[in-house]
Amino acid sequence: MYIAKVVGNVVATKKNDTLMGSKLMIVQPVNSALKKEGPEEVAADFVGAGIGEYVLVGSGSSVRVEEERRRATIDLAIIGIIDDVVV
Amino acid sequence: MYIAKVVGNVVATKKNDTLMGSKLMIVQPVNSALKKEGPEEVAADFVGAGIGEYVLVGSGSSVRVEEERRRATIDLAIIGIIDDVVV
Amino acid sequence: MYIAKVVGNVVATKKNDTLMGSKLMIVQPVNSALKKEGPEEVAADFVGAGIGEYVLVGSGSSVRVEEERRRATIDLAIIGIIDDVVV
Amino acid sequence: MYIAKVVGNVVATKKNDTLMGSKLMIVQPVNSALKKEGPEEVAADFVGAGIGEYVLVGSGSSVRVEEERRRATIDLAIIGIIDDVVV
Amino acid sequence: MYIAKVVGNVVATKKNDTLMGSKLMIVQPVNSALKKEGPEEVAADFVGAGIGEYVLVGSGSSVRVEEERRRATIDLAIIGIIDDVVV
Repeated sequence: MYIAKVVGNVVATKKNDTLMGSKLMIVQPVNSALKKEGPEEVAADFVGAGIGEYVLVGSGSSVRVEEERRRATIDLAIIGIIDDVVV
Repeated sequence: MYIAKVVGNVVATKKNDTLMGSKLMIVQPVNSALKKEGPEEVAADFVGAGIGEYVLVGSGSSVRVEEERRRATIDLAIIGIIDDVVV
Repeated sequence: MYIAKVVGNVVATKKNDTLMGSKLMIVQPVNSALKKEGPEEVAADFVGAGIGEYVLVGSGSSVRVEEERRRATIDLAIIGIIDDVVV
Repeated sequence: MYIAKVVGNVVATKKNDTLMGSKLMIVQPVNSALKKEGPEEVAADFVGAGIGEYVLVGSGSSVRVEEERRRATIDLAIIGIIDDVVV
Repeated sequence: MYIAKVVGNVVATKKNDTLMGSKLMIVQPVNSALKKEGPEEVAADFVGAGIGEYVLVGSGSSVRVEEERRRATIDLAIIGIIDDVVV
């Protein structure tokens, strides 16, 4: 998992059926000082995050552990909205 | 998942049986400004993408969640065609 | 697995249900000389680690092998507290 | 998946039982211009590739989807021999 | 998989139960010329490797394919001792 800032979203009309209904956000990984760190990625939004918010991003098969997501072609997801980073 | 530009394809006559029928495209990851970011990779095309198009690329076991792909030796796939990047 | 220093934690009130109860720590990977190496990540704490401690971090589906964690949206975890690094 | 050049092989007499019979090749990832890109890795050869050939390399659990490989300790494999790269 | 040199080990008294009995070695990835390449990692030793030896390291779920390791919190392991690198 990593901290990221939501910086935008992608629109894709033609896509894998299992992605229908998923909002696809562009996330910029950041460090604990909220400075950019590494390349942007695209994550499905599980928690209703908005542009500009800092979020927790999870990856791999962990984002498909819930029964309703077993058959989703998703390898990256916003799994939390970060209220505070304590360092 | 990440945004990429389709830049070509590979031809491989001798390959793993489970890859037969998959079109193998070369994808160049890009950021939300559509600038190159990191090395090219090879992805199976699930959505009928063309050279020059911007696409959504998924990785890992997520691209094998659908029943007909359970037994495919595929770890990277084009899972959407991007109409718009909103930042 | 890698060695990391626990440098902080994140607070996320709104998060995936399966994350409830997990303490989310910020870990800074280090090498065997305990020098910083690569970007910070966020790991669930399985062993009761404190800020400033050196820990062992595991990733991927390995951190969900235990029955009670099968359904947790966790891809990174603190799985040990390091007493000594011998080189 | 990525394009790579086969540059050598490793000999390991003492190894995990499940690796017995696998030929372990050293592969150098390359881009579509066949220029080196990133560090060498070691891949099991599924297709009979020779030194100097350009190949398609697959990673992760995708290389264990076939029944006879379910129990092999393999995370990287040569899954195709590349005849042509079209860009 | 990649080639690595065993450079040390970590001592962790407090750790995940499923790690008990695993010897945790520090491995430095190297290329085929045996030059350092990338950051050190920590791998469970499956083959009885010693400090200073060159080994084959496997990653991800591949290191848990054997029945007795299904429930081990291990994502990286030494799976072979390298006798020779042929390039």
